[in-house]
Amino acid sequence: MTDRGISLNLATTRQVWGFAEAVDGCLRAGITAISPWRDQIAAIGLDEAARIVRENKLQVTGVCRGGMFPAASAEGRQANIDDNLRAIDEAAALNADCLVLVVGGLPEGSRDIGGARRMVADGIAAMLPHAKASGVKIAIEPLHPMYAADRACVNTIDQALDICEDLGETVGVAIDVYHVWWDPNLANAIARAGRMKRIFAHHICDWLVPTKDMLLDRGMMGDGVIDLPGIRKMIEDAGFFGPQEVEIFSQDNWWKRPGDEVLAIIKDRVATKC
Amino acid sequence: MTDRGISLNLATTRQVWGFAEAVDGCLRAGITAISPWRDQIAAIGLDEAARIVRENKLQVTGVCRGGMFPAASAEGRQANIDDNLRAIDEAAALNADCLVLVVGGLPEGSRDIGGARRMVADGIAAMLPHAKASGVKIAIEPLHPMYAADRACVNTIDQALDICEDLGETVGVAIDVYHVWWDPNLANAIARAGRMKRIFAHHICDWLVPTKDMLLDRGMMGDGVIDLPGIRKMIEDAGFFGPQEVEIFSQDNWWKRPGDEVLAIIKDRVATKC
Repeated sequence: MTDRGISLNLATTRQVWGFAEAVDGCLRAGITAISPWRDQIAAIGLDEAARIVRENKLQVTGVCRGGMFPAASAEGRQANIDDNLRAIDEAAALNADCLVLVVGGLPEGSRDIGGARRMVADGIAAMLPHAKASGVKIAIEPLHPMYAADRACVNTIDQALDICEDLGETVGVAIDVYHVWWDPNLANAIARAGRMKRIFAHHICDWLVPTKDMLLDRGMMGDGVIDLPGIRKMIEDAGFFGPQEVEIFSQDNWWKRPGDEVLAIIKDRVATKC
Repeated sequence: MTDRGISLNLATTRQVWGFAEAVDGCLRAGITAISPWRDQIAAIGLDEAARIVRENKLQVTGVCRGGMFPAASAEGRQANIDDNLRAIDEAAALNADCLVLVVGGLPEGSRDIGGARRMVADGIAAMLPHAKASGVKIAIEPLHPMYAADRACVNTIDQALDICEDLGETVGVAIDVYHVWWDPNLANAIARAGRMKRIFAHHICDWLVPTKDMLLDRGMMGDGVIDLPGIRKMIEDAGFFGPQEVEIFSQDNWWKRPGDEVLAIIKDRVATKC
């Protein structure tokens, strides 16, 4: 297998490490790619984050996250778009491969998921000129359907690609195995994304059985039921060879462990289980 | 709107009523359709259950449930098929509109969801001759993707219809709004099911925000975010006019209330929110 490297999504160590500590930990582990969250960037300051990235020659596989477009009022939707414009600036300052979008769910009080989806497409279209001008790619991350109501109403790769097709090559997809592993059309959808040259990121973790919490019980690669090597092959066959980005939300397990231990286990699992 | 009537899925009152008590409660409420679970039938005995259905001229909109086909060994898969043959006999004895299938997830230790899906198709094919001979329709219930690992690896209406197409008109789908409301292709999939004349059941409840438990926190119609009238219209436009079957798993709320109260609220919500 091609050695694609590892990127640490900094959510994985957010309970133990801030931005700078996480970078130090990655460098100790020989990991030279990261994907930070905006609150982590804000905590250290954008300039300092950019300096750390630049001086350590880090690859930033993504900035998490833009999105959250739907809102009940036009003012609310504009405020959300404005926030996405700032997120583009942050991604540009870090020279990130993409800005990852968690697109948002239903506006308060709404049962109109079709309407929410139109707000998402409109919101991405509205941020597109600034993204292009800034040289920042936009990666729509389809989220698992269990988040359709409150986090993201884009729930399959195909649905994201339909939006991409309408918006041109600046907009692609972030494929997180946790969200898409169940999709009966997964192989076709990944191949389609490859033909469109729209795979911008590849996130990994695992689906635990049982899953005890809908948000914060993701598993370490190898501890669950996702065919990680199978999906990896689909993604490589589709032409994407960027680092595998490890993103684990794990309130009761991995978030409680020392960062260096977590990184050592990640390296082992990527080498043996992915 | 057409008055399609209500069917009580007896899971909704399983903590307070057995089969006979639930039928009495339904009759008090003017509800003349039910959908029992096999353990509830077993508890009272199949003959007695059939007598109650017959003498009260009840419509049985489904028997829950067959399925659970995948297993690691051939012996395990055969045992599962044998159990489904018994389920057909029970559905036939109750003159049920269909036997509902929750098809099963990954076999113990497996990460091969494609293989599990083939076991499902093979299992349904194996039970088909007995179903046809018994005059029992088989309704595949696509389950929400959050159950793909451990309950059902058939997760969209389209995926179920692909299986139906291969197996002929005895096999159709049970459409439960809880499982499919998020599907970006929902309208097309329901229309396709209608053209195929394969809609055998329509289950309703609601998706709560937040959802506190992946299995046992379903909502009463109107308390969540599902566009119930919209989906009802899709289903009626597709030619299905059977009773709306109310199936609510609700450990901390509805399961704790008196059955008569639950039925009164169901009747109100079906009249005003569905």
